Amino acid sequence: MVRDDVVRLSHGAGGVLTKQLVEKVFLKHLKDRTLLELEDSAVLDGLRCGRLAFTTDSYVVSPLFFPGGDIGKLSISGTVNDLAAVGARPLYISAGFIIEEGLPYDVLGKVARSMAATAKRAGVKIVTADTKVVEHGKADGLFINTAGVGVVEGASLGRGCIRKGDAVIASGTMGDHGATILLSRKRDEVRFDTNIKSDCAPLNGMLLPVYKEFGSGVHWVRDVTRGGLFTILNEAVDDSRLDVEVSEREIPVDPEVRSVCELLGLDPFYLANEGKVVLIVDCRIADLVIGRLKAHRYGKDSAVIGRVKKGDGKVYVETVTGGSRLADSLLDDPVPRIC
Amino acid sequence: MVRDDVVRLSHGAGGVLTKQLVEKVFLKHLKDRTLLELEDSAVLDGLRCGRLAFTTDSYVVSPLFFPGGDIGKLSISGTVNDLAAVGARPLYISAGFIIEEGLPYDVLGKVARSMAATAKRAGVKIVTADTKVVEHGKADGLFINTAGVGVVEGASLGRGCIRKGDAVIASGTMGDHGATILLSRKRDEVRFDTNIKSDCAPLNGMLLPVYKEFGSGVHWVRDVTRGGLFTILNEAVDDSRLDVEVSEREIPVDPEVRSVCELLGLDPFYLANEGKVVLIVDCRIADLVIGRLKAHRYGKDSAVIGRVKKGDGKVYVETVTGGSRLADSLLDDPVPRIC
Repeated sequence: MVRDDVVRLSHGAGGVLTKQLVEKVFLKHLKDRTLLELEDSAVLDGLRCGRLAFTTDSYVVSPLFFPGGDIGKLSISGTVNDLAAVGARPLYISAGFIIEEGLPYDVLGKVARSMAATAKRAGVKIVTADTKVVEHGKADGLFINTAGVGVVEGASLGRGCIRKGDAVIASGTMGDHGATILLSRKRDEVRFDTNIKSDCAPLNGMLLPVYKEFGSGVHWVRDVTRGGLFTILNEAVDDSRLDVEVSEREIPVDPEVRSVCELLGLDPFYLANEGKVVLIVDCRIADLVIGRLKAHRYGKDSAVIGRVKKGDGKVYVETVTGGSRLADSLLDDPVPRIC
Repeated sequence: MVRDDVVRLSHGAGGVLTKQLVEKVFLKHLKDRTLLELEDSAVLDGLRCGRLAFTTDSYVVSPLFFPGGDIGKLSISGTVNDLAAVGARPLYISAGFIIEEGLPYDVLGKVARSMAATAKRAGVKIVTADTKVVEHGKADGLFINTAGVGVVEGASLGRGCIRKGDAVIASGTMGDHGATILLSRKRDEVRFDTNIKSDCAPLNGMLLPVYKEFGSGVHWVRDVTRGGLFTILNEAVDDSRLDVEVSEREIPVDPEVRSVCELLGLDPFYLANEGKVVLIVDCRIADLVIGRLKAHRYGKDSAVIGRVKKGDGKVYVETVTGGSRLADSLLDDPVPRIC
């Protein structure tokens, strides 16, 4: 008997069965008017633009569902955050699904519902999509690619804007997402009673008002994902004549995440977040920026964690014991497939 | 010994190794100035817009290389064609790579080179990208997602523009890509000495001048991919008060593709192309459109293959023996993973 509640290879053929899958599972949740037209491309009217932001990310996180989120929430949040990080207002999202044959419809439905809810919260529209199916054993359940289009409304952000003396801000606790994924995978090995959950969230609602208020005082923003805080800070000053110096004591870390990291021998500053950013801003507005961030639910633990200095493209950490050490980019991967 | 010529899981970690992979393999070929900035999103200046087209497709074709193309050429052509099909000038492409651990660098390099060459020919820029790596056995070598952004310059195209009496045009021979992929997979089983190759190509160079010259006389365009000609024609009139009637005798098919289909018991009108479109146009300009298409290398075999009539959303084929039969959308999949 052919099961009618799982995805089959012929659901990827582009014919009647693809249409059924799309209607039954995706369109039920993703109801955008443009998407429903099912044309080859979404045509988006009345865009006021000039400077467009465009980004893409594939999501291969394992497991698909984890405390605080799932691949669907992640696939919208991550792409929204990439747009917001360059100063853009995220508007439109595309979704490409690569499905392993045998994936239950209800898994796909839960993911689609989560994407729809996250898109709604972030104020973006999922306007175009694609579905492919591969044989059992040729993918791992579900991979999602999202691309995003936004409009840059304010001042330019970029590495080139970073100046000596700038303040370095973390918008919250570091490593939450990476620690959550790691614990989800080790649930059978590690008994650890914890409330740790992923910080996965769309940050445009927190960031855009900051850009609007502080304009060119905000110099560089990056969401802290793969590679963690220290890798992202290296990207800020790499190949430049600047260093970043951060104080370990000032970097917010959830106490439970810290315990998990100690237990497993990991450094939270190389673990990913999916709902945190680093901002490098003019030091004169740092406290005001912190005030604005703290007023938002996703920024309540934000803190100034360091300064930009003259240097040669390195990141230094002042340790809790008062010493200083070099913090390189991530070399080996502590937690693969976290996003 | 760790091999340094294949992709490893830690190449997906977002740190030093990801940077090395990106620089060694991708940036060597994909040299766009915006891409090279490696920011979270590409920021695209000076776009004259108003009506933007946005599309996405994932490519999971197996094998990765085939006569006439490869997954790289396909991933640019397919997305360019989706934009051109809605009347847009394709401008920017994003690329998301999902790589199976162990994939040789030189495979990835060949694919990247092919993407760069196809993008150049199509006049589009690959401006933003992402790389993920999954464990051996969790993907099939390489999957690529591309999303595309274009600007709609001319008249609107869409199902709603199709009128009774319109002419249906195929821009060339049907089924070439599907037959090529099928033969590539069966090379060990089927001895068939043939020159068949995929028609995989970007069609914007052929289509945009047609839109410009004939304006609102062109009503609907769709690239003939998964599901083949008959499935695509069903999409044109599905749920409408129109039928499409095509003449089997008039539909261009390469003689070798026809032989392969007879040998394997397949219908070329359900096999995919990756470099052909169907155009539905005002019948008064059909011959002029054919003239313009034939003048282009990708349209030399174009032909009027049928008409739009009053009806109830069906596609009918006048067979070579003079009868008429209903041509439904594709139900089962004759050749999975063709794109």
